[in-house]
Amino acid sequence: MSPDAAMSSANALLIHIEPSDKGESLQSQIRRQFVDNILSGALPGGRKLPSSRKLAMQLRVSRNTVVLVYNSLLEEGFLVSRERSGIYVNDQLKASKPEKISTPLRPSAGSALRLPGRFQGTSHHSLARNWRDYRYPFVDGVFDISLYPVRELKDANARANASSEILQWSQLQHDCDDPMLVEQIQTRILPRRGISASANEILITAGSQQALYLLMQLLVDGDTQVAMEEPGFPEARELIRQRTDKLRYQHLDLQGMVVDHNLDGCHLIYTTPSHQTPTSVTMSLSRRQALLQKATQQDSLILEDDFEFESNFLGQPHPALRSLEGGHRVVYLSCLSKVLAAGLQISFVVAEAEVIAELRKLRKLVGRTPSLNNQRTAAYFLSLGYYDAFMMQVHKTIYERWLTLREALNIYLPNSINTGPIFGGSAYWITGPKELDDSYLLDAAAKQGILLEPVRKYFAAGDAPKNCFRMGVTSISADRIKEGVRRLAQLIRELVADHEENLSNAKGRLLSQAELEKRLPGMTLCCEMVYGVPCEIRLLADGRMQGETGGYNPEADTGRWWVKDGMYYRQWQLWGYGETHGYYVIVDGTQMKWFDADYRLVRKLEIV
Amino acid sequence: MSPDAAMSSANALLIHIEPSDKGESLQSQIRRQFVDNILSGALPGGRKLPSSRKLAMQLRVSRNTVVLVYNSLLEEGFLVSRERSGIYVNDQLKASKPEKISTPLRPSAGSALRLPGRFQGTSHHSLARNWRDYRYPFVDGVFDISLYPVRELKDANARANASSEILQWSQLQHDCDDPMLVEQIQTRILPRRGISASANEILITAGSQQALYLLMQLLVDGDTQVAMEEPGFPEARELIRQRTDKLRYQHLDLQGMVVDHNLDGCHLIYTTPSHQTPTSVTMSLSRRQALLQKATQQDSLILEDDFEFESNFLGQPHPALRSLEGGHRVVYLSCLSKVLAAGLQISFVVAEAEVIAELRKLRKLVGRTPSLNNQRTAAYFLSLGYYDAFMMQVHKTIYERWLTLREALNIYLPNSINTGPIFGGSAYWITGPKELDDSYLLDAAAKQGILLEPVRKYFAAGDAPKNCFRMGVTSISADRIKEGVRRLAQLIRELVADHEENLSNAKGRLLSQAELEKRLPGMTLCCEMVYGVPCEIRLLADGRMQGETGGYNPEADTGRWWVKDGMYYRQWQLWGYGETHGYYVIVDGTQMKWFDADYRLVRKLEIV
Repeated sequence: MSPDAAMSSANALLIHIEPSDKGESLQSQIRRQFVDNILSGALPGGRKLPSSRKLAMQLRVSRNTVVLVYNSLLEEGFLVSRERSGIYVNDQLKASKPEKISTPLRPSAGSALRLPGRFQGTSHHSLARNWRDYRYPFVDGVFDISLYPVRELKDANARANASSEILQWSQLQHDCDDPMLVEQIQTRILPRRGISASANEILITAGSQQALYLLMQLLVDGDTQVAMEEPGFPEARELIRQRTDKLRYQHLDLQGMVVDHNLDGCHLIYTTPSHQTPTSVTMSLSRRQALLQKATQQDSLILEDDFEFESNFLGQPHPALRSLEGGHRVVYLSCLSKVLAAGLQISFVVAEAEVIAELRKLRKLVGRTPSLNNQRTAAYFLSLGYYDAFMMQVHKTIYERWLTLREALNIYLPNSINTGPIFGGSAYWITGPKELDDSYLLDAAAKQGILLEPVRKYFAAGDAPKNCFRMGVTSISADRIKEGVRRLAQLIRELVADHEENLSNAKGRLLSQAELEKRLPGMTLCCEMVYGVPCEIRLLADGRMQGETGGYNPEADTGRWWVKDGMYYRQWQLWGYGETHGYYVIVDGTQMKWFDADYRLVRKLEIV
Repeated sequence: MSPDAAMSSANALLIHIEPSDKGESLQSQIRRQFVDNILSGALPGGRKLPSSRKLAMQLRVSRNTVVLVYNSLLEEGFLVSRERSGIYVNDQLKASKPEKISTPLRPSAGSALRLPGRFQGTSHHSLARNWRDYRYPFVDGVFDISLYPVRELKDANARANASSEILQWSQLQHDCDDPMLVEQIQTRILPRRGISASANEILITAGSQQALYLLMQLLVDGDTQVAMEEPGFPEARELIRQRTDKLRYQHLDLQGMVVDHNLDGCHLIYTTPSHQTPTSVTMSLSRRQALLQKATQQDSLILEDDFEFESNFLGQPHPALRSLEGGHRVVYLSCLSKVLAAGLQISFVVAEAEVIAELRKLRKLVGRTPSLNNQRTAAYFLSLGYYDAFMMQVHKTIYERWLTLREALNIYLPNSINTGPIFGGSAYWITGPKELDDSYLLDAAAKQGILLEPVRKYFAAGDAPKNCFRMGVTSISADRIKEGVRRLAQLIRELVADHEENLSNAKGRLLSQAELEKRLPGMTLCCEMVYGVPCEIRLLADGRMQGETGGYNPEADTGRWWVKDGMYYRQWQLWGYGETHGYYVIVDGTQMKWFDADYRLVRKLEIV
């Protein structure tokens, strides 16, 4: 082999071809490595390259492949061709390197940086960064990858990046939004909440946080009296506090934010009516009307944060505040599903045109319009129906998990917790026994791979209840929920064991085998489900059993019961996963108590 | 035709197929129209659909096409299949509509919205919104679509959205940047400016405005003494003014921002050293060192806004302030080419890790990380070498336009304007005759389709010079530049005609044919180009002519000269587009003046 041939061999060129299992074409591999080597200086300017025929032989690829790579590199100026001599690395490329590189000195230890605008507030991590390491991540708001609509987004993205499309959106003014996306939001998203809006009443933002930031900048200054829910959304509270000290906290009941004199004189009322953050309570229609009436009387603005309306599973979605009478004083904020947020950070604000125009100016000051390629991708994702199909799938999955969690809580923790009558959402606000110490529980649960969400950050004051926590289902598969809750129940029982009744210290009388056989047939019992609805159980004389719940969505089941070895046994068809369980029974007046084989109190019921 | 068949005909379904010239497949067209009709209610829930065989016949497409559409809609829940009965529109879809839609009332005329955070500053539109309507748009910073790397961006985008990639970046924490993009910036962008940085010294932002906003939030409060260049970048000035009143303006010379006692005690110095905004002056190396020394002495931070370093065409790029000794007190800000900004708003900040960590917190507060799909797209655009190839092409194009503009200015306005000795950039800062009224000129030019950039916004004080304007080349094709400048020159001459010398009122003696023939041969003349470099012209006795310029990049040309009808004629090979021009000549001591056929002064020269 001649020295020249050695010089121009593929090895000397540092070009290596790998089997194309990664989907990268041969041409692309060769091209990329040439560019790398040229830019790193491994192939210096002026270096002669082997002929396409030689290189093709050495790399064992077709000559055409090499010719195509050479041509593209020639066209782009990486290589130059000299007549009758060959192809060389362009030696003009060097000119774009600076004369010398000097390493910056590290600052002396004594000199502290002056950063007066250092963020002084509380940075709320909604969850542990390493939540994926937990076997039972009961988290809310982050999504497992299984829900990401990979194929559909790819398709929408490819359409948005067709040449003809790029020519369109790349020429839009920087403070405009993509008219195609605005139209899709007008026609496909807003009507579901009863909202109609013209294009100048809509602003697209890069995520909900940007929208909230802009809104607080515009709507709040030091003289603005603001009210928000307590417990409430900590990110919103932080943004309001950065602007004003005049922040009142308003309590909640089962209809949502309370409307009373505490709201008197408020210029701005921030609320999350669809599913209150963090309790998931949905504001009732009458409460919505009362809130709007109050706002109208005293000329307040309402900021309706509807970040999660897509997960309103049960019942009819309520119309947005913005869609009701008096809705012109509502600034409505929502977003496309959070599942998409890593790629498409699309949120939007709907308000009077004047508000939108001012927000647009602030958006320009703060940064720029959400990327127009992503706006167009979102527009296609909507217009092709992918968004609807995707949301149906997300609903189905989250709803299934949500029901599974409810059932597990009802089975394993019927006596010690309650969640309130929540109609949907993706998380439960759980109130445990009053002796519970949340920080101890959360730590102990974490050690067993169970990640629960602490709720302190939702409270402005220091008096957060210590017996509450949250459990979300956006990232735990349904098949792990039951086992996670079973372990959690075990833990909670151990933590509060000293305070709990057990078979040996409970008030009342333990029924014997004979007493059970005599008293139970024909008996009707009443209890409350952990989710706050009553349940009636009838023990028929023939051994059959009927159960029925109250509440918004009543459910019914049938089963069998019997008595054996001094215990009452039962098995539902559907409830309790259809498993068989036996209990010792103590009666105390009209109250009946069930204890498990370990003598632990499982449930209290009323004898009707 | 039976009623049933009529019901299920393609027309009744509102499905229309168009020839696929738009590239949309038949399947996609049918699918999209089904979804539209289902969601709009045109195809109500419970409606039975025709069999795939019937529909295929009616639409004249293959049955397989219809089957595939039906299957995808079934899978996604738009349709349901009932055994032995057929396919129906899912009537559960209705449930996601709200009960009723009420139109919001318009606010009463009397009630004004309370928007205390209304943006009070000046919103700077860098150019007329309708700039595309001008035939000669001498604008800067917006780009004609011809430069957009459509194909390469599509490829990078497709790679970034491959399934395996999406799985990666969609799982990144929300306040992280894409590690692949950070690495590309570390290895491909920063070394050209001599900067080395570790990953925790780099923050990606959604465009330069977001970076500047975050930086001003962090680095400036009411007590911070800031200095910036005057004239200077209005967006930066606006952001500083929102934070502090203590803003000093520092003047410039041909080496860039002056370093003197006016900077004493400044906590933060904002500068644009690569190409000063708006004058395009490049800060000399010695001035850079002086600035860093000053900053070190008094413990100042420097904010180095290097938004445009890619257009440093002529000469070696200077190393960034951040790369020099003392560079740890420099916060460096730059971006990918602005040509890409509509799709990829990628800017970045390089600073000490502590600064970056604080910026990251503020970025979280203000909004979110720049979309990760776009970060990954940018990373591929860089790693595949597309960015380098693209920037070479942009350089070439802009540089050609920039030279064309310089030549045109030198030919048509040699006597009345100057641009200063500028080495690159994409715009000229033009100083016209002192009698010029810019607002009148800009209006008059606009009426002729010539768009010039006013410069008042670059001055903080009200004393902006009235005889200056800017001309940019980022969006005008080279072939229109000459004609645009010719028309502009005509206009300027008309505007300042009263103040200009002409053949009849000029001091000195008009040379006759005989005097020209006697005195010119062997004469050497000196003049100054509009861009501030000297030019020497030798008229040889044999009719040849030699010209040579000084300056950083000397140029030379040869040509011919002769005398005819009492005028001096000349024709260069390259200069002056190789055109022939004749002049009347007046000599006044050692000064020579040339007048055109309309007796207007064209140029003054010195006889050496």
